[in-house]
Amino acid sequence: MPDQDQLARVRASFARQTVMDTIGATLEHVEPGRITIALPVSPRISQQHGFVHAGIVSTIADSACGYAAFSLMRPGAGVLTVEFKVNLMSPASGSRLIAEGRVVRAGRTLTVCQAEVFAETRGDRKTVALMTATLMTIEGRDDVVD
Amino acid sequence: MPDQDQLARVRASFARQTVMDTIGATLEHVEPGRITIALPVSPRISQQHGFVHAGIVSTIADSACGYAAFSLMRPGAGVLTVEFKVNLMSPASGSRLIAEGRVVRAGRTLTVCQAEVFAETRGDRKTVALMTATLMTIEGRDDVVD
Amino acid sequence: MPDQDQLARVRASFARQTVMDTIGATLEHVEPGRITIALPVSPRISQQHGFVHAGIVSTIADSACGYAAFSLMRPGAGVLTVEFKVNLMSPASGSRLIAEGRVVRAGRTLTVCQAEVFAETRGDRKTVALMTATLMTIEGRDDVVD
Amino acid sequence: MPDQDQLARVRASFARQTVMDTIGATLEHVEPGRITIALPVSPRISQQHGFVHAGIVSTIADSACGYAAFSLMRPGAGVLTVEFKVNLMSPASGSRLIAEGRVVRAGRTLTVCQAEVFAETRGDRKTVALMTATLMTIEGRDDVVD
Repeated sequence: MPDQDQLARVRASFARQTVMDTIGATLEHVEPGRITIALPVSPRISQQHGFVHAGIVSTIADSACGYAAFSLMRPGAGVLTVEFKVNLMSPASGSRLIAEGRVVRAGRTLTVCQAEVFAETRGDRKTVALMTATLMTIEGRDDVVD
Repeated sequence: MPDQDQLARVRASFARQTVMDTIGATLEHVEPGRITIALPVSPRISQQHGFVHAGIVSTIADSACGYAAFSLMRPGAGVLTVEFKVNLMSPASGSRLIAEGRVVRAGRTLTVCQAEVFAETRGDRKTVALMTATLMTIEGRDDVVD
Repeated sequence: MPDQDQLARVRASFARQTVMDTIGATLEHVEPGRITIALPVSPRISQQHGFVHAGIVSTIADSACGYAAFSLMRPGAGVLTVEFKVNLMSPASGSRLIAEGRVVRAGRTLTVCQAEVFAETRGDRKTVALMTATLMTIEGRDDVVD
Repeated sequence: MPDQDQLARVRASFARQTVMDTIGATLEHVEPGRITIALPVSPRISQQHGFVHAGIVSTIADSACGYAAFSLMRPGAGVLTVEFKVNLMSPASGSRLIAEGRVVRAGRTLTVCQAEVFAETRGDRKTVALMTATLMTIEGRDDVVD
């Protein structure tokens, strides 16, 4: 059974990621081990050719991975990204981007997640990026909680 | 001798990366094969614990790599990120972040770059992230020029 | 319809990978865009704790990715690995390892593949590694054909 | 002052990596946080075009990283590779390969290392690969010691 308290902590923690407001991303869906984030494409997040910047694509993919990992953690734990790798398979354009992150393996200290980022254009969906990330469970550090 | 025209193209292209305005990053230094980008730390780019979001750290590292690669390309070429991998070694905080990107190997089609991101705090410098990126030279595509 | 000639080229090319004999790996299954390689666990390929060395796990995963990419290429092309990233999720032990590689996106120049490596122990299967790889199609180079 | 006991443990542990005998690799140099491994190029470790297989290049790079990390650990600890990423910049050929691994950041639980692999040909040296790896210190597990 989903731990509703932890899913509420995911939402509260996401709401504290001020960068999401800055770029315009929202939390679309939360379930244990699986997170969806949406990002409308806008000129404010573009690189030089008008596509969404690869770093912004990575920002939503990283948060989708991080909160997928965090959704399975115990109260009081925090999550930090150890590393991630992202392949940019198509220029990110369209009307909005969707990042879906899921836990591949949850360990005691480290969790491996993968995320796929899609670009939506008038109902079509195209994969623009794939991420694999390693996240760390942090316990006992006051500055890294929730 | 540095190709001043190409270095001017780097600056002009960076100025078109509207995301840099959105997050507050500026191009600090340009030389052939080597780029420095600065980003003042602000609450607008934070993750949930108040550190700069790993995706934003990656955004300046990716642009530092991309423009390092681009600085060695011929007129008319464009650059796209194929993939990158970033290790986040310390939480990104302090007064500002500095991303230094450099070309490790420039090939005809693919260029490998590395970037280091430092956090500055009252004169101290601490490495917060290391990136290795693969960039692609794009020629003959109207939507990917400069 | 599968291109039987190209699948035959996959088998012939794999047979020239002398390292596969050295470590004891065999090509189990070939279909367009999807390759399976098997590797019996033996003390000859161990790291210090008796597990299969991460580099050997990567060797079969990389070949599974490379031949998945190659299986979709045209006659006369060769394939080279540009980069790969592998997460080792569990120590690799058991009776044999199975690497399954598949094409995620086949482009004109670059192909992105992913591989999963399983360890089999008395019928059980456990994921030990995940790889994402970028492969390059090489044309017109005499030393990189098939 | 270098911890001679720990450097002796590096050598003893490397000697237990039976895969190194199988491929012909030797430990060339050990100092705290820095390891060099040499591998004569031979047809036994080739891919289909006669170059050293990317997975074998990774095998020596991974061990160079792993032992660089291990050289700074305390007695009784073991080391496991969490993940690595490798860029293959030139086909690996020549007379022998040299992998140099060094610690970039040693944390309590995780250590980040980088390795460079060179190919030597009649005195010339060419970089063939760059690796960034995350290693984990394992304590209290009987099957992962030294």
